[in-house]
Amino acid sequence: MRTIETIKELQQWVDERRAAGESIGLVPTMGFLHEGHMKLVERAKEENDTVLMSIFVNPAQFGPNEDFERYPRDMERDKTMAEEAGTDLIFAPSVGEIYPRESSITISPGRMAEELCGKSRPGHFDGVLKVVTKLFHLSGADRAYFGQKDAQQLAIIESWVEDFNFPLKIRRVGTVREKDGLAKSSRNVYLSDQERVEAPHLKKALDIGQEMVADGIDPISAMTDYLIENCSGRIDYIQLLSYPDLTENVEGEAILALAVQFEKARLIDNLIFTIKGN
Amino acid sequence: MRTIETIKELQQWVDERRAAGESIGLVPTMGFLHEGHMKLVERAKEENDTVLMSIFVNPAQFGPNEDFERYPRDMERDKTMAEEAGTDLIFAPSVGEIYPRESSITISPGRMAEELCGKSRPGHFDGVLKVVTKLFHLSGADRAYFGQKDAQQLAIIESWVEDFNFPLKIRRVGTVREKDGLAKSSRNVYLSDQERVEAPHLKKALDIGQEMVADGIDPISAMTDYLIENCSGRIDYIQLLSYPDLTENVEGEAILALAVQFEKARLIDNLIFTIKGN
Repeated sequence: MRTIETIKELQQWVDERRAAGESIGLVPTMGFLHEGHMKLVERAKEENDTVLMSIFVNPAQFGPNEDFERYPRDMERDKTMAEEAGTDLIFAPSVGEIYPRESSITISPGRMAEELCGKSRPGHFDGVLKVVTKLFHLSGADRAYFGQKDAQQLAIIESWVEDFNFPLKIRRVGTVREKDGLAKSSRNVYLSDQERVEAPHLKKALDIGQEMVADGIDPISAMTDYLIENCSGRIDYIQLLSYPDLTENVEGEAILALAVQFEKARLIDNLIFTIKGN
Repeated sequence: MRTIETIKELQQWVDERRAAGESIGLVPTMGFLHEGHMKLVERAKEENDTVLMSIFVNPAQFGPNEDFERYPRDMERDKTMAEEAGTDLIFAPSVGEIYPRESSITISPGRMAEELCGKSRPGHFDGVLKVVTKLFHLSGADRAYFGQKDAQQLAIIESWVEDFNFPLKIRRVGTVREKDGLAKSSRNVYLSDQERVEAPHLKKALDIGQEMVADGIDPISAMTDYLIENCSGRIDYIQLLSYPDLTENVEGEAILALAVQFEKARLIDNLIFTIKGN
């Protein structure tokens, strides 16, 4: 496995793969890899001749008061894990390589960014679309892999790719969890010991909520009570929306999602399931 | 030469060209072709194995009070001209084929759309970026060809392609003019006989302005007087800006551009030249 840092080297690699008739699977990450990322690589490996992983903590998707500077980084550990999972190339560019100048042009996710995480993270999904657009173009990928844990990101990217005819497919990969149910996340390292004990209650609240939805009951107030009872963190949101279009017209595919702000970590989790019509 | 109307057929053609190792030159047009378009095809032909022309009057780039409905169309004549110039494939999709649903996501050109045509055509360049993004992705083009007459469009597209790493090159092709200097345009057919006699004064005003700029004199007021004297149309703007970044810091490459609204036709024209520093 090679690691490169420049667009020029990446272009050369992509040209070589293309010339050899190989398909490319892209796994975009911000590094500090965990088993969720490994599952993305495994899926990419199954469906493509070669797997490219990008590792780039994208400043454009962090707000001014967010954790860009202290976002966890460990390139050596990432390289070992990526290689073990079967990655062929890591692209780990500098910020200056990706953003050599400020562009006049912006991409706005619109309505889809007004729910869930978009509410408390203004501009976050603009930054996500900015970097994935560049990575999609640079990588020449046939398929790109994203985890369901970042479900709103996934829905917005799917819409972007479909509505603007990007020549690649987006693959949705299920959330990987700890044994106690906590969704794997690079930000879990920020949790205090006590918060780590509380954090599995996010998934439990979702399970409770899903059962209530199946019974035709609005789950938000019961889930709120449950989380207040069991978590010291502040609830940012609990929402039930259609998926992937993220409207309040929930019938068919739906997402039940929540975010809880602990002292140093803001955790998100969700379940996607089918609601049967009346 | 073939003409196709669906994305599916286009994708098949692109796959075949790619498999044969052929490079693709894209000439995006709104049809009602003239010699300016023919020059784009010729340039594309020189630099690529195969030439794809799109013909699509893009509703997204017309304002509610603009001329989308009455924009001139003549597909049979276009086919003959495109074939004579060496076009290999025409892609002429319906509006529903290009825009099957309203997207939540938009592309905003920002500061670069606040000058020149952007001022009197709000949303115009959003619509241009929307359609070229789709065409760039669908065509798999190595190079795309645009005329200098639409200089602001060209500058915005160049910036979009560079800042977001599209895997294609934009080629700028010089304006083609009538013998009397009038820039070729599909909209020239809207001119009355009297307006057609006046219209070459747009180019003359630009020539006068360029000489004044060379002499270090601000040309706007003299050009305004000249056009009021010689044209019945209403001046929309006359501006001198840096090019292609479109700022008021003019040294080096600059654009002197104007727009005049005649009764049924809004005509634009420009010169791009180098201003020597003091």
